[in-house]
Amino acid sequence: MKIVIDAMGGDNAPDEIVKGAALAKKELLASMILVGDEEVIRKSAEKQDISLSGITVCHAPDVITMEDSPLSIRDKSDSSMRIAFKMLKEGQADAFVGAGNTGAMHVGSTLFVHRIKGVDRSAIATIMPLERPTLLIDSGANVQVTPNFLYQFAVMGSIYMSRIYNLENPRVGLLNNGTEEKKGTQLQIDTYKLLSDSENINFVGNIEGKDIPFSKCDVLVCDGFTGNIALKTIEGMSSFILRKIKGVLSDSISGKAAGLLCGAKLKAMKRNFDASEHGGAPFLGISKPVIKAHGSSDAVAIKNAVRQAIAYYNMNIIKDIADIFADNQKKIIQ
Amino acid sequence: MKIVIDAMGGDNAPDEIVKGAALAKKELLASMILVGDEEVIRKSAEKQDISLSGITVCHAPDVITMEDSPLSIRDKSDSSMRIAFKMLKEGQADAFVGAGNTGAMHVGSTLFVHRIKGVDRSAIATIMPLERPTLLIDSGANVQVTPNFLYQFAVMGSIYMSRIYNLENPRVGLLNNGTEEKKGTQLQIDTYKLLSDSENINFVGNIEGKDIPFSKCDVLVCDGFTGNIALKTIEGMSSFILRKIKGVLSDSISGKAAGLLCGAKLKAMKRNFDASEHGGAPFLGISKPVIKAHGSSDAVAIKNAVRQAIAYYNMNIIKDIADIFADNQKKIIQ
Repeated sequence: MKIVIDAMGGDNAPDEIVKGAALAKKELLASMILVGDEEVIRKSAEKQDISLSGITVCHAPDVITMEDSPLSIRDKSDSSMRIAFKMLKEGQADAFVGAGNTGAMHVGSTLFVHRIKGVDRSAIATIMPLERPTLLIDSGANVQVTPNFLYQFAVMGSIYMSRIYNLENPRVGLLNNGTEEKKGTQLQIDTYKLLSDSENINFVGNIEGKDIPFSKCDVLVCDGFTGNIALKTIEGMSSFILRKIKGVLSDSISGKAAGLLCGAKLKAMKRNFDASEHGGAPFLGISKPVIKAHGSSDAVAIKNAVRQAIAYYNMNIIKDIADIFADNQKKIIQ
Repeated sequence: MKIVIDAMGGDNAPDEIVKGAALAKKELLASMILVGDEEVIRKSAEKQDISLSGITVCHAPDVITMEDSPLSIRDKSDSSMRIAFKMLKEGQADAFVGAGNTGAMHVGSTLFVHRIKGVDRSAIATIMPLERPTLLIDSGANVQVTPNFLYQFAVMGSIYMSRIYNLENPRVGLLNNGTEEKKGTQLQIDTYKLLSDSENINFVGNIEGKDIPFSKCDVLVCDGFTGNIALKTIEGMSSFILRKIKGVLSDSISGKAAGLLCGAKLKAMKRNFDASEHGGAPFLGISKPVIKAHGSSDAVAIKNAVRQAIAYYNMNIIKDIADIFADNQKKIIQ
């Protein structure tokens, strides 16, 4: 299969993206296409002593920046992201991996690749590497949602987790400010009812922030605003506490000795929390594989996002979602 | 000063509340009133070998449970929480500390003690013990807000932090899903403009979840739904990571040795993250001191919430808020 990567997207573009593409080609034996300013890409490869042989470089003169509006994808027709979408749409690539502007990727995937029939909104589905992998959907695409959107996220997330982690009946939770049925805003109250009444999913109730790490559900449903706050708070707390521990293990002789004794294990634990080790996040509901890599992705994160794209493609998850939405139109679209 | 405590509120009532009241009386020399089922309170004290001499016990036959609706405070006129509010209102107590149903405390403080003139909604103001103390307002009282409510939270939070931590010009941030001006839902976009335009506060812009621990602001403003998710996610991640570290320090001989070398420091770090060490959270905007202690408060947490109540009372923060809202009616009530 062929994977197109936006070489200009993300905080560490183009160097880490170019390096990540080369890593992915070598380790995953995937066929890679890098889209972006050709001269910049070739210079980056040369500087890093990376061979681009076997990697197609496709020139795109323009770039969508992190500051650009999501709608810029409509206007910047020569941007690397837009051209990557075009290649995916026209079948020159089987999957698209990008670490750039999330909003533009969301709009672009809907405008140029289209949603699966019956899906009202696509959502970013991010695996949180906690007690057990938990899928957060939506982790940032839709700041405004309806109960029915959330219901559809629950259905798509359940299919995804059942395929990727071979779970029989993934537990769906609703992120809320309490466990009781009537907690939250009207959105959560109405969604609770919709999810409870559904036979398509295994709804286990409301999940509070304090329970996110402890695997009370496999699919955690919320709007993209709340999802972003939760995901980034998790990220911030991991990095904050691990930094504090590093301080304890370096500020005295006994601390340093302790570091020698358990440093390797703590590092392994840190790696386990690292979202980049677990690949990118697909836009579930889009008719072809579009994978969002973290904005701060390094080469390893890009490689892992490519691995995610391959798994997502090979497991036919998109077809499974399409089949269920086609079969259950009445049930799912309430 | 006299402090009334709801002996029946919280997950560990009445034992830890009774013990906490005794601790507070001894260490803080405050005059304490315990409200609740008198027989239950006296038996709890006896069982724990705690002397109630010098502590007033006020009988209340009924209880508001965690499952009760916030409006139950209106109907349950013999409940411990309702009687505590009555004592505060009528001047038999100077401050009220409770670890019970948050919604009922919010409604009760508004119905029976009333808001400060000019304040549209009161909010729970919780100190997060991170890189530096950061005030999260609203951390759970109002799931639906307007930009003007958030603006008022910013003003009240600034006054609180300037008094409690002696900060000259507290930095106010808006919790959002990105740093750019146009991020978030319409609520955040409109609030950003209102906060930017105000001369009453020192607005430093949007703050993302990943930056919460790193002291980018002193007052972090948000609606109570988002605030609850952020605060509880912080709580969950702290307990999750520290549990993992405990695992590393006990699962092998080298880990145990490392634990001996740095365990005390890690414990001190854990204590530093512990919200209960930092007392309860006042309902800012209410005309008398109402302090919400964490639902899972133990005796030490109750004692610290009493300490918080004393500081809040002695520093005349309520009067300062009332003066500013009276002076700046036009400016503040847009």
